[in-house]
Amino acid sequence: MLQPFDDNYFMKKALQEAEMAFEKGEVPVGAVIVVKNRIIARAHNLTEKLHDVTAHAEMQAITAAANFIGGKYLKDCTLYVTLEPCQMCAGALYWSQISRIVYGASDPQRGYVALGTQIHPKTVVEKGVLENEAGELLKRFFIQKRNLN
Amino acid sequence: MLQPFDDNYFMKKALQEAEMAFEKGEVPVGAVIVVKNRIIARAHNLTEKLHDVTAHAEMQAITAAANFIGGKYLKDCTLYVTLEPCQMCAGALYWSQISRIVYGASDPQRGYVALGTQIHPKTVVEKGVLENEAGELLKRFFIQKRNLN
Repeated sequence: MLQPFDDNYFMKKALQEAEMAFEKGEVPVGAVIVVKNRIIARAHNLTEKLHDVTAHAEMQAITAAANFIGGKYLKDCTLYVTLEPCQMCAGALYWSQISRIVYGASDPQRGYVALGTQIHPKTVVEKGVLENEAGELLKRFFIQKRNLN
Repeated sequence: MLQPFDDNYFMKKALQEAEMAFEKGEVPVGAVIVVKNRIIARAHNLTEKLHDVTAHAEMQAITAAANFIGGKYLKDCTLYVTLEPCQMCAGALYWSQISRIVYGASDPQRGYVALGTQIHPKTVVEKGVLENEAGELLKRFFIQKRNLN
């Protein structure tokens, strides 16, 4: 049976955001936040353009989703993000009490899992959704960057 | 000898920000960021007003300071914050490579120290500056909140 609104579908939307970051010369990470199969926030990394370390895709998506909802808690929401969240983003997701986090590629060096950041007990996490696509995009970005320098 | 621009001086400025948060019904935490004895960013917690868990004093101060500097790294900067940073804020401070963090009251439950958040190796941390004042303000806030509910 066709499942138009499964995790792959929404992760593809997050990947489209990551590609927009790539085109701007930003580390290509994208995110969307979904409630009942509806995307309520889309964002991609903008740390270079904004000169702001806090402008990760997840952080912008959290702010935008809360703005849409009109409340700070992201209950019944799912975040799709192409790369495993860092300490900062996992810390923000903790405060948001988001219901579900789905991420693509793992980040063994800077990701929250290896660094032991606490996720809210109400939050379910799934990983590895379209991880190859997300990982390939990141790899391509860093190869291109190396060749330019 | 008089030292007008010592840590106490700048922490008092952060406390003034915390008092502004208190008056707005926000958890009273304030922050300033200083370069060469000059305050380049002031902020206080606005999570309730903005419906945004990312609106901690430190996060806003990091964004404002980077905006002032025109770059995302907060080298030669000191953050003064009245309460020990949480995972999210410590994670953001990691990315900023800030030179120095000075905080007032400790937060054994939600603070980054107990939760093991990684701080950048270039960052020096000092704690306990005007901790009683910062702690009293927080205590007053939570007593008042309890009495209102």
